[in-house]
Amino acid sequence: MTQLRIPGPTPLPEAVLTALGRQMINHRGVEFADILNGITARLKTLFQTENDLFVLTGSGTGGLEAIIVNMLSPGDKILSVSIGVFGDRFAAIARAFGVEVVTLKFDFGQGADPDAVAQALQANPDVSAVLVTHNETSTGVTNDLAALSGIIKGAGKLLLVDAISSLGAVDLPVDAWGVDVAVSGSQKGWMAPPGLAFVSVSAAAWEAYAAAKIPRFYWDFGKARSYLEKGQTPWTPGVTECYALDASLKMLVAEGLPQIFARHAAIGEQTRQGVKALGLPLFADPKYASNTVTAVAVPPTLDVKKLLKVMREEHDVVLAGGQQTMAGKVFRVGHLGMVSGEDIVTLLAELKLALPKAGFGSA
Amino acid sequence: MTQLRIPGPTPLPEAVLTALGRQMINHRGVEFADILNGITARLKTLFQTENDLFVLTGSGTGGLEAIIVNMLSPGDKILSVSIGVFGDRFAAIARAFGVEVVTLKFDFGQGADPDAVAQALQANPDVSAVLVTHNETSTGVTNDLAALSGIIKGAGKLLLVDAISSLGAVDLPVDAWGVDVAVSGSQKGWMAPPGLAFVSVSAAAWEAYAAAKIPRFYWDFGKARSYLEKGQTPWTPGVTECYALDASLKMLVAEGLPQIFARHAAIGEQTRQGVKALGLPLFADPKYASNTVTAVAVPPTLDVKKLLKVMREEHDVVLAGGQQTMAGKVFRVGHLGMVSGEDIVTLLAELKLALPKAGFGSA
Repeated sequence: MTQLRIPGPTPLPEAVLTALGRQMINHRGVEFADILNGITARLKTLFQTENDLFVLTGSGTGGLEAIIVNMLSPGDKILSVSIGVFGDRFAAIARAFGVEVVTLKFDFGQGADPDAVAQALQANPDVSAVLVTHNETSTGVTNDLAALSGIIKGAGKLLLVDAISSLGAVDLPVDAWGVDVAVSGSQKGWMAPPGLAFVSVSAAAWEAYAAAKIPRFYWDFGKARSYLEKGQTPWTPGVTECYALDASLKMLVAEGLPQIFARHAAIGEQTRQGVKALGLPLFADPKYASNTVTAVAVPPTLDVKKLLKVMREEHDVVLAGGQQTMAGKVFRVGHLGMVSGEDIVTLLAELKLALPKAGFGSA
Repeated sequence: MTQLRIPGPTPLPEAVLTALGRQMINHRGVEFADILNGITARLKTLFQTENDLFVLTGSGTGGLEAIIVNMLSPGDKILSVSIGVFGDRFAAIARAFGVEVVTLKFDFGQGADPDAVAQALQANPDVSAVLVTHNETSTGVTNDLAALSGIIKGAGKLLLVDAISSLGAVDLPVDAWGVDVAVSGSQKGWMAPPGLAFVSVSAAAWEAYAAAKIPRFYWDFGKARSYLEKGQTPWTPGVTECYALDASLKMLVAEGLPQIFARHAAIGEQTRQGVKALGLPLFADPKYASNTVTAVAVPPTLDVKKLLKVMREEHDVVLAGGQQTMAGKVFRVGHLGMVSGEDIVTLLAELKLALPKAGFGSA
């Protein structure tokens, strides 16, 4: 069977594949309300939050847009803490909606330095909110969000977090860390197909919502809140994805948060050690290494396009290339959601065979 | 088996249910590109268009928002031709984004009068675009879009059409009728789960796009166009829905447009005749009766809430109530997508049994 080892969509467990085949039901009926209420409750458990939480029909990027349009007004000044392609995207969305974005960028492969964030906030006391990527999928870096949150919330700013590829796999206690809005996406650690985004909304975020003036309709948190009171969504939801998510969340809650985090930590470590043992350099600073995705730096002799093709066509393993400015510089191994230690053993064995065919370490 | 007879989501054929259970693949790989290109080509066939066509991940309402943000600027003056709840929603979205909306409303149950539209355009020569609902799901009315298009395109206006519950079931030759943007949604006549919206974009619409200044990011047609050139979508798409749509579109294209339209026309007529034979009044003007959804006017003695409950719980048929101001005034029968004459015979027989239990025609 093909090993899909990209950082989302992730492989679906058998129970989820079965759930997908369920016939349609009325999305405004009692049966769907039960599913939506169950999903919402379990997502709150896994977000470690008592904040409001909404399931939106759209991609993760739609969830990022939802944050911007619900929280901010044109002309607002905010701080973007970016460590990669997705951090840049979050800032680009804010700019597209007329927000003034102060950019604090760190070298790709590095996590954000809390001291530098503190300095940026001191230098720009008029920013109202800070955008942070928890896990940067493009570089395989997990930010020290606890430390960053201490600085950002300590300064009284709204903390808006892209947790698309971390939540459900890596520890992110939303309430304990004071995250005002966290967003994730169904196709990541959640082991469901893409098409749903999840957002948690704090009390402070609701205050920001009340003042926010960027025009909004589809992504409106207030509409989501009023419909959720009747076990519905404002617009027809991705019913099939909700079936899938219902199945996968039951598995995740049964497994328990400590086990989920330990499993991803072990798989992450196994991947990094295995990659290094093949003589390949890791791209990310080990201090910030992500347990959901590993970026491998491309050595000079390696033809990475060829490697991905050979891995796919001859070894039945699908890896991801680098995105935008990272193209050619890294390839990436996704190891979140349904992935076992044996999968990684197989992947590394196949990689060892494939590397010489793409110019690296050939005899 | 439960008969789901609401105007979307619609029941899924066996081949679609099977397709849903397919394992995830790389949404940026060649295999997905084949699926996306195939879907796009078949949608163009069924839209009867050579315009650009994009698959967006979101609900139909997301598709409506996409039209507004890609086509218009804040302060633009447009004409909204509304014949029901969904026409009002389309206008509300435009207003939410700062567009000045001139409203031309017709009585619920009526189609839009082309002469009145012509007069409104004469009285407001500075409107740049006109919003029209092809099939109004809340009232069971299909507008005479050919006639409306003649007026609107004759006046040189951009024609923006909500065809969510018509396309794929009712004749709408997008190019022949000069529709600049038409939007539909996967859970309607398309026999796929909700979660995808489809938009066709004409050359004139691209000109409007270039001038449009409402902020946009997620729904951006330009981004969709540039990614489609590589067989991709800008953001992770609803992969599972694409599998489903791939299966259902193959069925629809094999059936052929004339057969699809004839089938819906026959089922629509059968439903209306059957409803009348039960002594129930139709809500819509027969001249504009929709072949995808029938609204039944609630007679004085009928407890419609009870009827829907009895039909659901005792007769295993799920019908839809009225929306917003239509609540209590109508109930609705969806008959689009996978529905047979036998289904309608069964539905009418069950309805006949249920009506007396809800106060209508009891012995």
